[in-house]
Amino acid sequence: MDKNKTQNASDSVENEVEVKSRRDFFKSAAALSATALAGSSLLASETKGEGDPNILEEPEWATKWGDPVTYNRYGMPSPYEHNVVRRNTKLLASGNWRASIAVTPIHESEGIITPNGLFFNRHHGGTPTIDPNKHRLMINGTEKEIVLTMDELKRYPSVTRIHFVECPANGGQEWRGPQYNSLQFAKGFMSCAQWTGVYIKTIVKDLGLKPGTQWMLAEGGDSSSMGRTIPIEKVLDDAMIVWAQNGEALRPEQGYPIRLLVPGWEGNLCVKWLKRIEFSTDPYFCKEETSKYTALRPDGKAIQHFYANEVNSTIVKPSPEKGWQNLKDGEWIEIEGLAWSGFGTIRGVDISLDGGKTWKPAKLKGLVLPKCWTRFSYMHKFKKGEELVLASRAYDDEGNIQPTVDQEVTAVGVEAVYHRNAIETWKVNKDGSVTHVQVRSKLKRAKDGRVVIDEGGKA
Amino acid sequence: MDKNKTQNASDSVENEVEVKSRRDFFKSAAALSATALAGSSLLASETKGEGDPNILEEPEWATKWGDPVTYNRYGMPSPYEHNVVRRNTKLLASGNWRASIAVTPIHESEGIITPNGLFFNRHHGGTPTIDPNKHRLMINGTEKEIVLTMDELKRYPSVTRIHFVECPANGGQEWRGPQYNSLQFAKGFMSCAQWTGVYIKTIVKDLGLKPGTQWMLAEGGDSSSMGRTIPIEKVLDDAMIVWAQNGEALRPEQGYPIRLLVPGWEGNLCVKWLKRIEFSTDPYFCKEETSKYTALRPDGKAIQHFYANEVNSTIVKPSPEKGWQNLKDGEWIEIEGLAWSGFGTIRGVDISLDGGKTWKPAKLKGLVLPKCWTRFSYMHKFKKGEELVLASRAYDDEGNIQPTVDQEVTAVGVEAVYHRNAIETWKVNKDGSVTHVQVRSKLKRAKDGRVVIDEGGKA
Repeated sequence: MDKNKTQNASDSVENEVEVKSRRDFFKSAAALSATALAGSSLLASETKGEGDPNILEEPEWATKWGDPVTYNRYGMPSPYEHNVVRRNTKLLASGNWRASIAVTPIHESEGIITPNGLFFNRHHGGTPTIDPNKHRLMINGTEKEIVLTMDELKRYPSVTRIHFVECPANGGQEWRGPQYNSLQFAKGFMSCAQWTGVYIKTIVKDLGLKPGTQWMLAEGGDSSSMGRTIPIEKVLDDAMIVWAQNGEALRPEQGYPIRLLVPGWEGNLCVKWLKRIEFSTDPYFCKEETSKYTALRPDGKAIQHFYANEVNSTIVKPSPEKGWQNLKDGEWIEIEGLAWSGFGTIRGVDISLDGGKTWKPAKLKGLVLPKCWTRFSYMHKFKKGEELVLASRAYDDEGNIQPTVDQEVTAVGVEAVYHRNAIETWKVNKDGSVTHVQVRSKLKRAKDGRVVIDEGGKA
Repeated sequence: MDKNKTQNASDSVENEVEVKSRRDFFKSAAALSATALAGSSLLASETKGEGDPNILEEPEWATKWGDPVTYNRYGMPSPYEHNVVRRNTKLLASGNWRASIAVTPIHESEGIITPNGLFFNRHHGGTPTIDPNKHRLMINGTEKEIVLTMDELKRYPSVTRIHFVECPANGGQEWRGPQYNSLQFAKGFMSCAQWTGVYIKTIVKDLGLKPGTQWMLAEGGDSSSMGRTIPIEKVLDDAMIVWAQNGEALRPEQGYPIRLLVPGWEGNLCVKWLKRIEFSTDPYFCKEETSKYTALRPDGKAIQHFYANEVNSTIVKPSPEKGWQNLKDGEWIEIEGLAWSGFGTIRGVDISLDGGKTWKPAKLKGLVLPKCWTRFSYMHKFKKGEELVLASRAYDDEGNIQPTVDQEVTAVGVEAVYHRNAIETWKVNKDGSVTHVQVRSKLKRAKDGRVVIDEGGKA
């Protein structure tokens, strides 16, 4: 249990404040009695509020009773947070809002939990309103076949895990270069939550698998009957049927009353409104795994049966929505981001301030868990008027590392939609605003059809 | 980082299913091909859905488009979950719903995260609606004094931690015996969330502490100007000023835009709508820490300056709201509960089925973190018509263990309100319903005024 004693990847508070000259400053409370070191303040200037009406005058809300305690109610965010919402575009919706996607404002995310009200969602037939008392889960293809009510399903011993869910199209609009000057639209096809449910291996243990079982079909109860087939090794490793998200019942748009969770793998495998699973010797080639969710390669062929979301990362602060316009010269500022890998646990993240020419290690902060968002942090001393090109590069415990855009594009071309995980870059402009850019070489098509880097006549 | 590789306290899946005869059943996927062991199913019977109209007929929701994707919106729970809400009673409200408490439906909790919509809340002057652009944080009593806007505050390097917050009155209505046949009302004065903010020690490092500083005042911006004083050692250990909860801005009733977080200590110290902190050599004896939040002892004196919520636990499933009425004879069922300690990390939990006569170790499951809810689990084979008296007893890494009701009452009497952490018991009745009971000896008052156990003329 000692391994969980700390919630921080590092045991040292240095993890939070990476300012070398102050390394010994926390050694004892007594040291804090010393006058703050001149010129090394985290905030470059301070104010005592002179002349600020918000300090001099009593605010209206302090002069009267507030609202009654929220008895018998379910709370909502402050009206001042009305801009922190999921968003959609016509570009993604193809004119049908029921077979579309709503993306998460990850530029406003904190830690590794996405609140349920902001969790991204992707539908193929809209959100059904399912009566849990009438919903059933059928399990076929096992030695014993079974139909479960929701109450019966929840009697199995439960497990709780924190995992991200990511649409494999996350970032996939941008193979040919940035289309959105926005983190929410560029990378918000993902979220991360605490999931509670039952391991499928726990149920299968009761029912018995037939010899030769290699695949499991998952079928949704919505009008699209969303179907996907999953290799049995993954199913018996960590796939779950979940009924709760962040400590409460799944939201309708997340599959209420139950969905499949396939940790680290494509979000569309996590079939929502789950009504049936069936075990078999062969894959099912469902509509949604042949018409979609394949990888078109430069030679015109499409690859099937690849599932894990690759190691990936993005800088969250700053981002196009959260610039550095209000920073003062000489102020220390935290560059913060998210890293994740469907293959395992994030081992580290490198940060570049010059578009990938040089790299420095960032600190991982908070909980570092498998197939889960991991926060990273790098302290930077802001220089008024500077221009930076910020990039992050994550690597995981399976030896995977994020490719450059050049590497990814020369490997798989630009015709793909899914599984884009090339390094993302933000340009910090002289005025502190942030622009989504892409660092890449000139490309050309070689005689054999492949896309290659144009190195001036070679290739 | 390996220490965080697993999200489970045990590396073995045995943690989830504690059924001895099947211990080797998971060793390989091949083993799962065997027919399920006759008679040892987790669910005692199975159905193929014969005659169930919910299987035979296509549900209405599968025949039509569902609702459009929630673009530009903030989601809400399913209408079928309308009973999972915070609740209040007149008993607690004293006729003023603005200085009251709303308790969390912890019988429906899953894992260690309480969603923000269900997080318990306690107010002294109602919930103010604060404009974050006008709100300021003033810091006094430091070498440099400062006033911060919310933007400036958020520029400090942030930390994210999962901690419970508990009102010290949790369970305090029940010193003289059960008053509520309800887990929500008996123990729902607490919740647990992921908090993001800045350590106060990080700010203090910039500003410099004056020699002899021993206390910190925290003052709320609501109409009650809620004030509490906190020893400087705790402040410099892990106290935080937080602006985010479960990945989004604090809810208004949780202190939007900022609150204090004092991990593991009384919830009322976590001053909401925080407007000022001041460092000093002496405590402040604010109204709310003299009129309330002291501990009345049998001799009529009240103890001040005790802060940490003691080690505690409660069984969540079953509970008065979640009985075993629908279980079948011979079915395996998971007894599940929550344990927590304001002093540190939960080391273990014992379970009793006979009201505390005999104890067996439960398994800790999921993440085990300091000053955080910890889930425990015990698999029980249900016998139709059995009567049980279920109890749990938690202990932490500081050597603390929950007392019996006898032990607690003889130590501190029954006049107290706060810091009750005696063992909680549920009676499982013959029909599977669950009743809140208390296991205690007969008590009497000794000549010196102390409450003692009546052992038949002795004492």
